Amino acid sequence: MRQFGLEILATDKLARSGILTTPHGDVETPFFMPVGTRGMVRLTPPWVVAEAGFRVLLSNTYHLMLRPGADVVEKVGGLHRFAGWEGAMLTDSGGFQVMSLDAKFEESGVTFKSVYDGSFHKLTPELAIQVQEALGADIAMVLDVCTMLPNDKEKLARALDLTIDWARRAKDAKLRADQALFGIVQGGTEIDLRIASAEATVGIGFDGYAIGGLAVGEDRDTTVGIVELVTKNLPEQSPRYLMGVGDPYTIVESVARGVDMFDCVSPTRLARHGTALAMEGKVHVRRRENLYLDSPIEQDCPCPTCQRLPRSLISHLLRVDPWSAGSALAIHNLWFMSRLMSRIRASIASESLDDLRAEMKSIWRNA
Amino acid sequence: MRQFGLEILATDKLARSGILTTPHGDVETPFFMPVGTRGMVRLTPPWVVAEAGFRVLLSNTYHLMLRPGADVVEKVGGLHRFAGWEGAMLTDSGGFQVMSLDAKFEESGVTFKSVYDGSFHKLTPELAIQVQEALGADIAMVLDVCTMLPNDKEKLARALDLTIDWARRAKDAKLRADQALFGIVQGGTEIDLRIASAEATVGIGFDGYAIGGLAVGEDRDTTVGIVELVTKNLPEQSPRYLMGVGDPYTIVESVARGVDMFDCVSPTRLARHGTALAMEGKVHVRRRENLYLDSPIEQDCPCPTCQRLPRSLISHLLRVDPWSAGSALAIHNLWFMSRLMSRIRASIASESLDDLRAEMKSIWRNA
Repeated sequence: MRQFGLEILATDKLARSGILTTPHGDVETPFFMPVGTRGMVRLTPPWVVAEAGFRVLLSNTYHLMLRPGADVVEKVGGLHRFAGWEGAMLTDSGGFQVMSLDAKFEESGVTFKSVYDGSFHKLTPELAIQVQEALGADIAMVLDVCTMLPNDKEKLARALDLTIDWARRAKDAKLRADQALFGIVQGGTEIDLRIASAEATVGIGFDGYAIGGLAVGEDRDTTVGIVELVTKNLPEQSPRYLMGVGDPYTIVESVARGVDMFDCVSPTRLARHGTALAMEGKVHVRRRENLYLDSPIEQDCPCPTCQRLPRSLISHLLRVDPWSAGSALAIHNLWFMSRLMSRIRASIASESLDDLRAEMKSIWRNA
Repeated sequence: MRQFGLEILATDKLARSGILTTPHGDVETPFFMPVGTRGMVRLTPPWVVAEAGFRVLLSNTYHLMLRPGADVVEKVGGLHRFAGWEGAMLTDSGGFQVMSLDAKFEESGVTFKSVYDGSFHKLTPELAIQVQEALGADIAMVLDVCTMLPNDKEKLARALDLTIDWARRAKDAKLRADQALFGIVQGGTEIDLRIASAEATVGIGFDGYAIGGLAVGEDRDTTVGIVELVTKNLPEQSPRYLMGVGDPYTIVESVARGVDMFDCVSPTRLARHGTALAMEGKVHVRRRENLYLDSPIEQDCPCPTCQRLPRSLISHLLRVDPWSAGSALAIHNLWFMSRLMSRIRASIASESLDDLRAEMKSIWRNA
């Protein structure tokens, strides 16, 4: 595809840092993508997300195809205009969202019930591409079959066969030349299935490769182990994307194994529940001790929330106006993720990622 | 009081425009104050409020004295630090908030039930001053007795006697030299009571005068009539503040009668209910027709929401994520109020307020 590709500019062992070129601008890797599930990151307008340093916004195909409908998004000029986002965008395929529901998988596709009105919908690999091409993100994802962990191997193997078949059909259905398409490696925690999945997906050939079906119940070191296994079986020059992971420990360890992209709703979800992310660890802002503190959430944080608001106000608002508290904390948590990714990139450039790994391990492995 | 006073720089008939000097900066009059009930304007961090052009933030004594408590606010350095607000602040007295509850008025003060935990509290004119001095806003208000309209005259007269007595006691209780204190004119819609109230309040002598007890059920032209009556009985050089009024028609008509200050929760409350304010009138953004529009809420609005987001996104979010829609619309509505006040000041400077009044009357009188 024109206008899409990864240039690796620095490495530190298996970790790499560089530039991902997209139709909507260059992005430094590794990077994290905030999630605008329904077109906007919750409580956080897009210019606030951009000011935090993010260049790629993720949005959910599942939600947008049901409400307002891909045709509506297309009619107003596509997803970038709809979301008011000038940077690059990625849409997931809907595979993860249908998993948690009463979904029925067949060879042809998956039938699921809408969370909005209970109506039934069928998503096929081809339709997932058509919808994503109508939405018009810079990066689309193939429709995959996610499975909860732990799960029995036979079920995982069947899901994997279907995922590989669907990936092939998705690639065949692709029409837009200005949209990258990523394959998704599945296989749960089974080593042989993950290897088979990576080989088959790479065999089909995509613009990038995602590792799916992780951080769904297994412990973090298991996640990292699978990431290590999969990345070894992916082509070096293609971008690698670990889906749905937002905790600093797993991110840094995955970067150390060659992952370039991450996404998660956790920064803004934690914010709404009163948890702030800080380099020294989580801050439970609602705790009474914070009510009496005029200090910011994080001492040296350059985010507008830390520059202006005392812990006292946010702790108070969590009790009496939690949505307002959440909107202020979401800004801080997004800045934290952006700063973390900057530190990761700088550490790769100076070949000192191991120091950052040690720091993150001590604070975040069990946080 | 040092560091406090109104300098009138331009007039257009009874309307005036100038500079209000406060310990936290100069403010162009007439101005509108957004309401940060519990310390923050709902969903809108203070720097976003300042970027919209506001210089004075109002916060509610009633809420802050109950949660987190004036002692907590004082401990973290006062209300400006607590709220993260670098401009001027005004605290109301709590009189309006206790009105809507099962409040019991006695000569000594008013006993009311906390909305937070049902506990009983007593507010006296002296305590209202002590609490507001601990909070430390630039402008404090005397504790008054509000009454719902319509109401019988005898009840209004009794409420008024108490308000005047309390105003005297409030002034006597005042200790801080760096905080202005405003008296409040009451008297419902009774002409003689309003005149008596204005005379008595001015007789006591305050740094400014508020018109209270309006926009609580009467029609807008009645509000304006009372405003006209009261302002004629207030000293020209003192700032005049019409409490709790946010509709453009009443604001412009009150400015035309010499009012300098306004406050209301309406811009952000309307936002959360999907109503956008625009120079051409209200926009009900949730309406289905807006779902298909890539145009902004208001065509020439310089606010970040209109610069970046299409109606389509906001209309969609009002259905599926109303808090996120509300946060984006709140920004626009605050900018609208700020732009309205700018237009009012410019119209006074060019002695063309009547043109703006005609425009606002045609659009907003019945909106």
